[in-house]
Amino acid sequence: MADLTHLDERGRARMVDVSGKADTARSARAGARVRMEPSTLDKILDGSLPKGDVLSVARTAAIMAAKQTSNLIPLCHPLPIASVEIEFSKAGDGLLEIEADVRLTAKTGAEMEALTAVSIAGLTVYDMCKAVDRAMSVTDVRLLEKSGGKSGHYVREPDV
Amino acid sequence: MADLTHLDERGRARMVDVSGKADTARSARAGARVRMEPSTLDKILDGSLPKGDVLSVARTAAIMAAKQTSNLIPLCHPLPIASVEIEFSKAGDGLLEIEADVRLTAKTGAEMEALTAVSIAGLTVYDMCKAVDRAMSVTDVRLLEKSGGKSGHYVREPDV
Amino acid sequence: MADLTHLDERGRARMVDVSGKADTARSARAGARVRMEPSTLDKILDGSLPKGDVLSVARTAAIMAAKQTSNLIPLCHPLPIASVEIEFSKAGDGLLEIEADVRLTAKTGAEMEALTAVSIAGLTVYDMCKAVDRAMSVTDVRLLEKSGGKSGHYVREPDV
Amino acid sequence: MADLTHLDERGRARMVDVSGKADTARSARAGARVRMEPSTLDKILDGSLPKGDVLSVARTAAIMAAKQTSNLIPLCHPLPIASVEIEFSKAGDGLLEIEADVRLTAKTGAEMEALTAVSIAGLTVYDMCKAVDRAMSVTDVRLLEKSGGKSGHYVREPDV
Amino acid sequence: MADLTHLDERGRARMVDVSGKADTARSARAGARVRMEPSTLDKILDGSLPKGDVLSVARTAAIMAAKQTSNLIPLCHPLPIASVEIEFSKAGDGLLEIEADVRLTAKTGAEMEALTAVSIAGLTVYDMCKAVDRAMSVTDVRLLEKSGGKSGHYVREPDV
Amino acid sequence: MADLTHLDERGRARMVDVSGKADTARSARAGARVRMEPSTLDKILDGSLPKGDVLSVARTAAIMAAKQTSNLIPLCHPLPIASVEIEFSKAGDGLLEIEADVRLTAKTGAEMEALTAVSIAGLTVYDMCKAVDRAMSVTDVRLLEKSGGKSGHYVREPDV
Repeated sequence: MADLTHLDERGRARMVDVSGKADTARSARAGARVRMEPSTLDKILDGSLPKGDVLSVARTAAIMAAKQTSNLIPLCHPLPIASVEIEFSKAGDGLLEIEADVRLTAKTGAEMEALTAVSIAGLTVYDMCKAVDRAMSVTDVRLLEKSGGKSGHYVREPDV
Repeated sequence: MADLTHLDERGRARMVDVSGKADTARSARAGARVRMEPSTLDKILDGSLPKGDVLSVARTAAIMAAKQTSNLIPLCHPLPIASVEIEFSKAGDGLLEIEADVRLTAKTGAEMEALTAVSIAGLTVYDMCKAVDRAMSVTDVRLLEKSGGKSGHYVREPDV
Repeated sequence: MADLTHLDERGRARMVDVSGKADTARSARAGARVRMEPSTLDKILDGSLPKGDVLSVARTAAIMAAKQTSNLIPLCHPLPIASVEIEFSKAGDGLLEIEADVRLTAKTGAEMEALTAVSIAGLTVYDMCKAVDRAMSVTDVRLLEKSGGKSGHYVREPDV
Repeated sequence: MADLTHLDERGRARMVDVSGKADTARSARAGARVRMEPSTLDKILDGSLPKGDVLSVARTAAIMAAKQTSNLIPLCHPLPIASVEIEFSKAGDGLLEIEADVRLTAKTGAEMEALTAVSIAGLTVYDMCKAVDRAMSVTDVRLLEKSGGKSGHYVREPDV
Repeated sequence: MADLTHLDERGRARMVDVSGKADTARSARAGARVRMEPSTLDKILDGSLPKGDVLSVARTAAIMAAKQTSNLIPLCHPLPIASVEIEFSKAGDGLLEIEADVRLTAKTGAEMEALTAVSIAGLTVYDMCKAVDRAMSVTDVRLLEKSGGKSGHYVREPDV
Repeated sequence: MADLTHLDERGRARMVDVSGKADTARSARAGARVRMEPSTLDKILDGSLPKGDVLSVARTAAIMAAKQTSNLIPLCHPLPIASVEIEFSKAGDGLLEIEADVRLTAKTGAEMEALTAVSIAGLTVYDMCKAVDRAMSVTDVRLLEKSGGKSGHYVREPDV
């Protein structure tokens, strides 16, 4: 049990003590996919929605959600986020890829911020398109890359 | 474009006007899965974590997140949530299933609240176990069932 | 266990389902006391602090905290608060009494809102005076009276 | 003093009791202007910013801010907002006009929500353009129209 | 477009990366005015409102709003605010001047915090007096002075 | 009045300027007690509630509340909390003791975070048990110990 650091020796939750760690530059990149009808993705991407507003709203929601991470995930530390960037791309027929890149200098890393950002971006896309495609799903919310801190550089192995 | 009600005739975002709709009883049920190493799921479920605290914290986070939905998803209406229940179960080797059931009486439905609840539950499980299993992913965030309102009863077709 | 309605038959937390209940007018009155050096209370009450700003800030904090109750207490329902009033009085040497009166029309009662209001009022007084009296304590946070709803009128028995 | 209903007979703040009022349909329309260098407004409006993202972000911020009103303005009641629409237009050289239209059914009106929305929209425009035009100002934040409730229909007299 | 740093090369919003900047002491001073009937301002200032509670509530709201800035303005960085002071003064007949002074040590400046503080102070004054003077407006929300950081000292030129 | 640092020379509230202070390691420990029927405490502690969920929910609420402190207490500074631990124990018949230990590195101390955590933990216990014991009270919310910063180590004198 010693390896699940969010739980003390009796299995109770705690916010892990990072007070002894140094502030270092850290970055995290997370991804998520939204699976939908190809025609829904076409509407979002191909211009029948002037100004791309679905993705613009989702991007803003994602950036704001990154800043809410420690209010949503109980044991997360509040972190001084220095940068958030959100990318959307088409990953296949009816498959929207979302990526978030978060940077900061702190005693602990930014992966939860990046994961929260892509999750809320995906849910915002769902919310704005659900009237035409209720069966959409948000999937593959995952950490893609992480650097800084004691655990060093991590790059997710590509899916087979 | 008329069918994407979150966008007006010029493609700009707006909070859809529900002021003319009646308050009716509504419920929504959403699901998500967390994919992880089988040994991680065993630690969560099989008693090596006394008191099951990972799931207890994730359940509390999910309930509180449901109440934050309209602060996270830009075009969601604030809703007077009447009930939230969260269930966890094992859906397979290294696969944790999360379900949220949300009920309320309002002018619009509860699906975003249920989807937000399972997403944050999944991210909380990730956060509490990431030290031992960084490659975990949250997947299949989807609406399972929905009732109440003009659009009637919806049940998601089973995945093939 | 059936009588602890926040826990289901397996002891797990849930937000109690109030969707079947009627909206009725409800009110709750809660109290708290702040115990401090008599000279600290004198500074707060007797005019050496022009404009009584400690109590004014504490009153504003209490009203705002009542509106945050469902974001702080995990299983509380969000409620459409219709009125909050905060009273301060001297209950004895070095003893400040705080009372909150909350009214609303909803499916469930306002006692947690009133209790949260007086707690935060007390903590705000502590915060503003701690530089001169670190040993202050907030005590006797309790429900004084409650009306509306199925459980009927409740008045706390006077302390002996 | 009786006419300043947010203050009781002793001048202390309180959230005005609306528990005896009926739920009625209400709407409010507010406006604000952002004064800037004409070249800054041209950049925002005339296409040198592809996709109009400044206004899209400001619109999203405004809608989300409307939902935060009761958490920002101490004596505001939490209200079940049913609709928010935000409009931007050019009101003159270097003058951006912002309008918010808020609708809801409640015991009290939506004017603070509309005023908060346009204020935050204006500040968001400032934030996104301040690197090129630090002397911008947000001005003329005002209620334009209001309907519903006991006080009846209000239309602001045109500025001379 | 390169000069609008909140937008990337394709015009999409992002939170500007400040991770490479040093933490330095910064301060910002912003102002706003509330225009109202002279008799309304007299009620606020001249003692017919015992204890000056309108301004006390507005001051508390402004300080709390400064701390919410990064939750309201989408691309603002969360900052460790070290000090907020709010001043009210009479700027003319029926004209209330509000000033906020914000200090902090961080990688980016405090101007949005100061501007948010005075905006919410103005809206709070409106809210508390709107029953007697619905035509009040908040105007001239502007940065007065700013120091610290690479861009150096800024003092707004006096209005003519 | 000079000794009440939250008030300026005219008695008005302000967030005390800590911008000139150094970041140092700080910790604070606070306590609270919940007084209830002995049979209620037995239900919470002695296993008739499988998995101890009341305390698990209260612990999660306390940790999350610590992170909300500066949003609740008007003049508190936002602080980068590095650790929160919550302990529950039986302090006597029908008397539950709650302790919070908060650590961080900042320009000002963590005592309000620890006090807020135990207060919300106590209110959460009340909320989850109020259906069986409405007369419960939260009492003795107090600072137990504090270290770091200019004012040095503080240990509360034991109650007589």
